[in-house]
Amino acid sequence: MKKYLFTPGPAPVPPEVLLEMAQPLIHHRTPEFSVVLDSARERMKPLYGTRQEVILLTASGTGAMEAAVTNLLQPGEEAIFVNGGKFGERWGKLIEAHGGVAREIKVEWGRAVRVEQVAEALRAYPRARALFVQASETSSCALHPIEPLGALTRERDVMLVVDGITSVGVIEQKMDAWGIDALVTGSQKALMLPPGLAMIALSERALERMKKNRAPRYYFDLRRELKAQCEEHITAYTPAVGLVFGLRKSLELILAEGLPQVFARHELMARATRAAGVALGLGLIAPDNPAPGVTGLLAPEGLDTGKVVRAMRDRLGVSVQGGQDQMKGRLIRIGHMGHMGPLDVLVVIGALEIALKQLGHRFASGAGVAAAQAVIESWN
Amino acid sequence: MKKYLFTPGPAPVPPEVLLEMAQPLIHHRTPEFSVVLDSARERMKPLYGTRQEVILLTASGTGAMEAAVTNLLQPGEEAIFVNGGKFGERWGKLIEAHGGVAREIKVEWGRAVRVEQVAEALRAYPRARALFVQASETSSCALHPIEPLGALTRERDVMLVVDGITSVGVIEQKMDAWGIDALVTGSQKALMLPPGLAMIALSERALERMKKNRAPRYYFDLRRELKAQCEEHITAYTPAVGLVFGLRKSLELILAEGLPQVFARHELMARATRAAGVALGLGLIAPDNPAPGVTGLLAPEGLDTGKVVRAMRDRLGVSVQGGQDQMKGRLIRIGHMGHMGPLDVLVVIGALEIALKQLGHRFASGAGVAAAQAVIESWN
Repeated sequence: MKKYLFTPGPAPVPPEVLLEMAQPLIHHRTPEFSVVLDSARERMKPLYGTRQEVILLTASGTGAMEAAVTNLLQPGEEAIFVNGGKFGERWGKLIEAHGGVAREIKVEWGRAVRVEQVAEALRAYPRARALFVQASETSSCALHPIEPLGALTRERDVMLVVDGITSVGVIEQKMDAWGIDALVTGSQKALMLPPGLAMIALSERALERMKKNRAPRYYFDLRRELKAQCEEHITAYTPAVGLVFGLRKSLELILAEGLPQVFARHELMARATRAAGVALGLGLIAPDNPAPGVTGLLAPEGLDTGKVVRAMRDRLGVSVQGGQDQMKGRLIRIGHMGHMGPLDVLVVIGALEIALKQLGHRFASGAGVAAAQAVIESWN
Repeated sequence: MKKYLFTPGPAPVPPEVLLEMAQPLIHHRTPEFSVVLDSARERMKPLYGTRQEVILLTASGTGAMEAAVTNLLQPGEEAIFVNGGKFGERWGKLIEAHGGVAREIKVEWGRAVRVEQVAEALRAYPRARALFVQASETSSCALHPIEPLGALTRERDVMLVVDGITSVGVIEQKMDAWGIDALVTGSQKALMLPPGLAMIALSERALERMKKNRAPRYYFDLRRELKAQCEEHITAYTPAVGLVFGLRKSLELILAEGLPQVFARHELMARATRAAGVALGLGLIAPDNPAPGVTGLLAPEGLDTGKVVRAMRDRLGVSVQGGQDQMKGRLIRIGHMGHMGPLDVLVVIGALEIALKQLGHRFASGAGVAAAQAVIESWN
């Protein structure tokens, strides 16, 4: 049975990238590898909207999140984090794991944090040294507004640290213009790679903070990585060589397509998926601020979405994800990131219709695929 | 831009097969290769519905067609061929190229040959030594009835030679039960491989005919190949080693899915494609006897299908084929063979809708994908 991957990461890897990674390995302390590393890092900059250096880490996205915490916050220091889902919550856990004092802004899953909430928290915790937030909260399929948060934090000595794991390469990120101090992402989403690489860039003032920061750190010590990658053109520790080759290739494909086109394609896939969900009588978890990389559809009353996910995967070969934590059984998360086109939405919605019908959910047959088609017919 | 392959061959190759073929080559005169060759040939038998030996040739399907002609017909001998399209016509060219006397049964593109037409030709040409026909005529997307033709030829000293290039692995073929004397196919269709391998099997009486046949032949001399492959477990000449490895793997996948399931899947994809075509106001070239491996949709009046094919490929990344020869510009041929599932029909129909709309054809938006979805919702 043919398999289709529509999870919110890992996302499909293009054949060009698979072939690139299948080449014989080279050693990572060679001029040949330095060329690849430099070029991959350079090609990340437009996706970040930054002139700063983008540093590669051999880790998954959580590793880069940890690097942001340990390089910008010291034990005993306060930090505010936006908890609108599983990954927001993870910021809190990381802050506390490293001895920081975590101040939570609780946001209902699927909602965007309100700028006023953040302004209030900054007033309530004047000693906070950083604000940790997701650009796109993968668990709740919602976007948080980053640009206005930057307007708040840039006036203060508060670092704005953004998890861009399901937003970099999906929507425009203007790190420099918006005043983001640290932006992290991972390889297995819109960057069209297997998991195993993470990226982080720091603003000028974050670099200053990092230099003075005395928090214990070693593998994720960005002082060392910056020196290695920017001055010596190697990594401090053994990198995932194949993934770095793959990254250079996937960024070549992304930049050749053109970032405006890439963003528009993701937006169209997301709109088509949402339209289909509504046509099938499913609610949207984030109707007002939906993430363009992953769409969250709410289960009909009384239907465990775990069953929908299993039916789609086991009987139709189509992988999507259910909800995490409090949304377990109540959410269907459909990823549409990376090596995918609007027409693929028809496949995942076609499968969703079959699974829903088999599980007794009532809707007008074909309404989902027709709604998706109505959206994507504007493509090209 | 992501690419999608819906041509009537080559058809998509599963990743498992690509990986199998990507392995380091071995030499072809080794016990290791003999194991692979034997196993690939053995696994072909259920697809052919035969206990006879299936011989591999390093050639495309036309090579196996030529082998059938030169091993079963001698210069000066008469043969009847069914010409219902480009590949039927090719039988005639092959017969004549080798000095045979070709007696044509002309069939309108899209129609099946009538059994009575064949019976009549057999009466009209009592010296005919063979009947050449397609099981599925790829150019006209139509099936010919093989079983009743076998009932006619088995009573006479007339070999029934069948081109199964787009039927083997798509629909059931009962070579032995139906009295097929030679059945040929190629690797790049339902066998889920790149082009480069062809297969042929001969009935007992065809083997007798072959032994006595004095037609000039060398590379396609099946006497030599049968001895090499069946007795020495090697090929007479250097084989496409990687493709033979791939064939063993693809047949493993096909037999694991189960032939009844494979045939049902192809039938469902074909039904969904035809339903979508009708819903979009397109005619079917073969309404009464459509091939389950490739569907032929007729252009709306005044629309050059070459434009549709180009719009789908260049703007949407979806490859289908136009018509050949007399149907050039008038036919859209959508392949649905091999590593493909019913949900994929939504992709090709979604793309067809977008292209048709851009080219000014009027239809109810979404009608095609909805009609396809209505058919495939019975899947699994």
